[in-house]
Amino acid sequence: MPELRKDPVIGRWVIIAVERARRPKGFRPPVTMPEDGDCPFCEGKEACTPPEIFAIRKDGTGPNKPGWDARVIPSKTPILNVESEINRHGRGIYDVMGGIGAHEVIIETPKHIANIADLEETQIAKVVTCCIDRFVDLSRDERFKYVLIFKNYGWASGGGKVRHSRTQLIATPVTPKRVKEELVGAKKYYDYHERCIFCDLIRQEIQLKDRVVMDFDGFLAITPFASRFPFEVWILPKQHNCDFSTLSVENRLNLGKILKKVLTKLKMGLDDPPYNFVLHTSPFRRKKSKSSYWKTIEYDYHWHIEIIPRLTSPAGFEWGTGFYICPISPEETAKYLREVETP
Amino acid sequence: MPELRKDPVIGRWVIIAVERARRPKGFRPPVTMPEDGDCPFCEGKEACTPPEIFAIRKDGTGPNKPGWDARVIPSKTPILNVESEINRHGRGIYDVMGGIGAHEVIIETPKHIANIADLEETQIAKVVTCCIDRFVDLSRDERFKYVLIFKNYGWASGGGKVRHSRTQLIATPVTPKRVKEELVGAKKYYDYHERCIFCDLIRQEIQLKDRVVMDFDGFLAITPFASRFPFEVWILPKQHNCDFSTLSVENRLNLGKILKKVLTKLKMGLDDPPYNFVLHTSPFRRKKSKSSYWKTIEYDYHWHIEIIPRLTSPAGFEWGTGFYICPISPEETAKYLREVETP
Repeated sequence: MPELRKDPVIGRWVIIAVERARRPKGFRPPVTMPEDGDCPFCEGKEACTPPEIFAIRKDGTGPNKPGWDARVIPSKTPILNVESEINRHGRGIYDVMGGIGAHEVIIETPKHIANIADLEETQIAKVVTCCIDRFVDLSRDERFKYVLIFKNYGWASGGGKVRHSRTQLIATPVTPKRVKEELVGAKKYYDYHERCIFCDLIRQEIQLKDRVVMDFDGFLAITPFASRFPFEVWILPKQHNCDFSTLSVENRLNLGKILKKVLTKLKMGLDDPPYNFVLHTSPFRRKKSKSSYWKTIEYDYHWHIEIIPRLTSPAGFEWGTGFYICPISPEETAKYLREVETP
Repeated sequence: MPELRKDPVIGRWVIIAVERARRPKGFRPPVTMPEDGDCPFCEGKEACTPPEIFAIRKDGTGPNKPGWDARVIPSKTPILNVESEINRHGRGIYDVMGGIGAHEVIIETPKHIANIADLEETQIAKVVTCCIDRFVDLSRDERFKYVLIFKNYGWASGGGKVRHSRTQLIATPVTPKRVKEELVGAKKYYDYHERCIFCDLIRQEIQLKDRVVMDFDGFLAITPFASRFPFEVWILPKQHNCDFSTLSVENRLNLGKILKKVLTKLKMGLDDPPYNFVLHTSPFRRKKSKSSYWKTIEYDYHWHIEIIPRLTSPAGFEWGTGFYICPISPEETAKYLREVETP
């Protein structure tokens, strides 16, 4: 069974996913991209995946049959187990909890297309709808606090060997450390200024322009001021909103548009690099929660997407120190991306 | 000029190292290992490097000439600039400071050997002495708060294309985020228990044995309870000590012994993997510092080395969330490493 363990010094939770463990001898330094395998995610191969949880389908088609536009399935190799219990307990000085959670895969297209950048905007809007549907459904499970929505594109990003565009989702009983740090930081700023820090940041970026990649139909794409990685891009809704799952139908399409534009710029300007993106949104907002960051979260937090192209082999001391070195300024990368022309 | 920029939400400092910037077009997805180049770090090539800052030399030999055992030089492509000023200032809502710092390279052997695991224990002790000498010297510069000592071994670890064993050192005007989190966490534990958390952890690990890789001449090597990465190993001095730079001559040799043993186990057991290590030690202890974590640091912090073999291509959401998934338990990897026999 997987297990959640807490680092006793800094308090970070780690998933020890022993069920998907390889034997020690199975670990070898990363290798180059393997051959493309037989794709279980294409239309017509529904029997090769676990039964679907949700799908956007053409009228008259039934579950686990062809006729879908986007489809959500449980992960075949889940890193957390939905049938588990939280069961918080101590083990000597250490803290442990059951490796409970949900791990799902959103198959973004019935066609064998690798990069979400190559999908139609309306198709990306359907992927957003799948994410929101699953987010809302999982929020009803009181054991979960957060849903991580993320994408690994390309082998070097951890994208696996099947090149079929997909997003992953992991529901967890803890709020991820980085999101919690953002919640705490944003609250501190709000307590002092009575304004959302992200809204202030958006206003300043629009005014200065030099880190803006796109400003488009209610969304802003910027290279963040303190970028950790070259060509790191954040996409933020310009209107204040802490909770991704409340996105209107119109804004799902607008998000699809800017995502497609930005990812196409990365693809064309940087030779189709591997990349990851992660959605940062408010944890499930439940009234009975006692954490202090809940008091103002509606006003101080602001959901956004962080895109990280994998262009450099990061020096490991970044993991060991939390200290990042970005070898190019975000002003220069924003300028470069602005000038990449997309079809 | 390089610049230190602070993430306005979570407060993490990032180095924007524009001086070593490649052009945007110069970024491409990571490639495979290049050919071994002409090595500027070998004995006899002293003229190919910047003039040395410190060296352990045979009697009668002069600086920047052959006859050395270990040699410290400034980095040819420094990510921070020693001639700069701190110059803290705001830029709208953002915080900036000058990219001031020192970036040095410790050449660990005059011979063309790639892995520190292949050096003699006494030679590794000399490397430790170089680190301590530089640490003490840099601590006199009031602009600096911390010295990061780290190693990138192998191409995939960011080790560069010259395969000659070396350690890097970066003096910074800020305490790295992860070290600060440890200082804060360790202090919180001390405030409650009046004991060092690392000492408690060492006691428990020795008692339980299942995560101990080696227990040897005053040092303990363990796979940490909440390991982020497969085969992550920490080396800690068993006797409480917050400050690496106070290590006695005898313990420098003992550290050399356990480092050699552990890194040889990784090399032999895992097919010579790329790896990184990072030294975590107390920031420079200056009496006039006002930070609250200084009050008890002598009692609550405990220096150690974190070794991270690069065996998996990490999924990028770890950077986006601070949430790690370790695919194998530290108990299993410790057992495996214990059983690897070294010469």
